[in-house]
Amino acid sequence: MTTTTLSIADLHQRVEAIFCRAGINDVQSAALARVIVAGERDACTSHGIYRIEGILRTLKAGKVRGDAQPTLEEAGKGAIVKANAQGGFSSAAFELGLPHLVDRARTLGLAALVVNDCTHFSALWPEVEAVTDHGLAALVMCPSYASVAPAGGIRPLLGTNPLAFGWPRPGRDPYVFDFATSVTARGEIELHRRAGKALPDGWAVDSSGAPTTDPAAALAGAMLPFGGHKGSAIGTMIELLAGVMIGDLTSPEALDFLGTTTLAPRHGELILALSPEKFAAGRPGDPFARAETLLQKITGQGARLPSARRFAARARCEADGITLSAPEIALLDRLLDLGLDGVA
Amino acid sequence: MTTTTLSIADLHQRVEAIFCRAGINDVQSAALARVIVAGERDACTSHGIYRIEGILRTLKAGKVRGDAQPTLEEAGKGAIVKANAQGGFSSAAFELGLPHLVDRARTLGLAALVVNDCTHFSALWPEVEAVTDHGLAALVMCPSYASVAPAGGIRPLLGTNPLAFGWPRPGRDPYVFDFATSVTARGEIELHRRAGKALPDGWAVDSSGAPTTDPAAALAGAMLPFGGHKGSAIGTMIELLAGVMIGDLTSPEALDFLGTTTLAPRHGELILALSPEKFAAGRPGDPFARAETLLQKITGQGARLPSARRFAARARCEADGITLSAPEIALLDRLLDLGLDGVA
Repeated sequence: MTTTTLSIADLHQRVEAIFCRAGINDVQSAALARVIVAGERDACTSHGIYRIEGILRTLKAGKVRGDAQPTLEEAGKGAIVKANAQGGFSSAAFELGLPHLVDRARTLGLAALVVNDCTHFSALWPEVEAVTDHGLAALVMCPSYASVAPAGGIRPLLGTNPLAFGWPRPGRDPYVFDFATSVTARGEIELHRRAGKALPDGWAVDSSGAPTTDPAAALAGAMLPFGGHKGSAIGTMIELLAGVMIGDLTSPEALDFLGTTTLAPRHGELILALSPEKFAAGRPGDPFARAETLLQKITGQGARLPSARRFAARARCEADGITLSAPEIALLDRLLDLGLDGVA
Repeated sequence: MTTTTLSIADLHQRVEAIFCRAGINDVQSAALARVIVAGERDACTSHGIYRIEGILRTLKAGKVRGDAQPTLEEAGKGAIVKANAQGGFSSAAFELGLPHLVDRARTLGLAALVVNDCTHFSALWPEVEAVTDHGLAALVMCPSYASVAPAGGIRPLLGTNPLAFGWPRPGRDPYVFDFATSVTARGEIELHRRAGKALPDGWAVDSSGAPTTDPAAALAGAMLPFGGHKGSAIGTMIELLAGVMIGDLTSPEALDFLGTTTLAPRHGELILALSPEKFAAGRPGDPFARAETLLQKITGQGARLPSARRFAARARCEADGITLSAPEIALLDRLLDLGLDGVA
C-alpha cells in the first residue's frame, strides 16, 4: 500500500488549514489541529484525523460556532476558573483557561477549570497531559449524550461519560488513564452489527430493557455501564459534577439539543488540578519518587500501565513522523479542497 | 429469638462506654461511637457493632494510639486543610478538620481535607454525608492494604481502596455511593471458603497469578479489581492521590506496617468538597433542582439509587430504635465488662 510519512508539524499545518478553509476561526483551528494531530501521533486513531469529518459535519449542521471566541469568565482568588467556549469547540477554551488553572492550583494546592458552552469531541488525555506537564495531577470528566442505561434500568440516560486521570512523572511520560464509563463504545456495537457478530454478554439491553447480544437490538436499546452498579454510580457522578454542578448540559439534555448521536455533543467539562508539592509539604518522602516505587511494582509484576501503547506510538512518530495511507491523504486533500462541501 | 431494642442515643452511650473502658480517650471514643452506631442504624452491619472487636484488637496489638489527640496542621487561606490523627483513629481527626473544610469550600468553591497518620476502619459514607449535610458535594478515597493485583498482574499490590461520592439533596437523603475498587470484599471470599463454595469467575487469582475459583487459593493469591483495567486504574489513582500525594502510606506500605490483614490499617484519607452554588453561579438553572430531574430519570425507569437500602434502614431505626440479638447484647456487655481482656 502506498503510504506517505509526514512530520508532526507538517500534519498539523495540513489539518489546521482544513479547519480554516471550512470557516473555523484561527484560535479554534489551531487548538483543534493540536488535539487531532496528538491523537494521530499517539495511534489513538479514533481521535485522530478520522474525527475531522465529524467536526465539519457538526459545523455544517449549525450545532457549533466556527467563529466563536472563547472567553475567560472567572479567574479570581478562588479555586474555580471558568472558561466559556461561546458555542465553539472545547479545545481553545481549555487552552485559554489552562494557565489560570495552573496558577490557582499552585497557589491554593487544588483548583478546578470549568469549560462551558462547548462542543466536545476529543479524548480527555490531551487535557490531562496539559495539566501534568505543569507538575500537577489532573482529574477530568464530562458527560456525552444519553446512550447508557443506569444499572438496573432499561432506557438510555447516562452518556458514555469519560473519566480521565493523570499523575506527573518528572522526566517520563505521565501516568494517564482515560476511559468511558460505559462497558464499550457505541462504535464497537456498530462494528459488531456490520460484521454480523453477536455482542458479548453484559454490553447492552434491548428497547424493553432485557439483556441482548444482538447488535441491532442493542443500538435500539441502551449500552450498559462498566462494572455494573459501580460504573453506573461513577457515570451518574459525572452527570452531577460535570453537567448539573457546572451549570451545563447533562447527557439527556445534550441529546435533546443535538437530536442525533452522529454529531459531536454540546456540554461542559470539569478539570481538577492538584499540586502534589502542596499536598505533600511537611510530610515524609518525595511524592514523585514514592509514586515511581508504586508504579514499578505494577510493571514489575508484568502488568502494563494505562496509555503505555499510546506513549510508545508517540515516541515512534516523534522520531520517524506520522505515516498515513493513500486514502487518508486523499481525505485530507479532499477536505482542504472542498471545505464543508467535502462532507455529507 | 430474644431481641432488645435500644434508642440510637442509648446504643451510642453503650458503645462509647466500651471504648472509654478500653482506655481510648474521650474525643476518640465519642467519634468512634458515632460511626459505629451510624453503621448499625443503617443496617450496614459490616461497619456496625461488629467492628468494635477489631478496633479493640488493633489497640491491644499496639498498632493505634488510644490516647492520641488529633491536631489541625493546616487551615489557612489555601484549598488544603490538614488534620493529623497523631496515630489514633481517623474519626476524631476528620471531625476536627470538617468545619475548616466546609469553610474553605464555601469560600473558594473547592477544597480538600487530608487526614494523616490515622488508623482507618470505617466506611467512607459517614464522612461523605458529613460534607453533604453542609450543602457541598464530596469525593472521598483512601488506600487500605495490599490485597488486590493490578489488572494484568499476579501479586497483591493495591488495596480494596474505596471510592465514595455524595451530592446534597435539600430536604432528602443525599445521593451517595461508597464502594471498594476490588470486585469483592476479602470477607466474601472467606465466607465462600467456610461454605465450601467456588468463587464466581473473575474474583481472584492464585499465588501464581492464574485465575482461580478456589477460595483458599484466592486467599493465598490476590483479589482482582472491579471492571478490569478500568477499576485497576481507579485503584491506582487512589494509591497516588490518597497515599503518595498526601504523604501517607500506600497499601503495600500499610501492610508492611501492620504485618497482618486482621487488624485495621494505618494510612491517610483524602476528602474533596465542592460547592455546587459556587460552581453553578451565573449559569442557567438551579443545580439542586436539575439534579432531582436527573435522579428521577434513574428511579423512574426502575433503577435504584445507591444507598437506598441504607437510608430505608435508617428511617426505620430513627422511628423504632435499633434491634439487637441476644448474642449482640451479650457481646456489648462482655466488652464493657472486660475491656481489652474481652478480645483475643
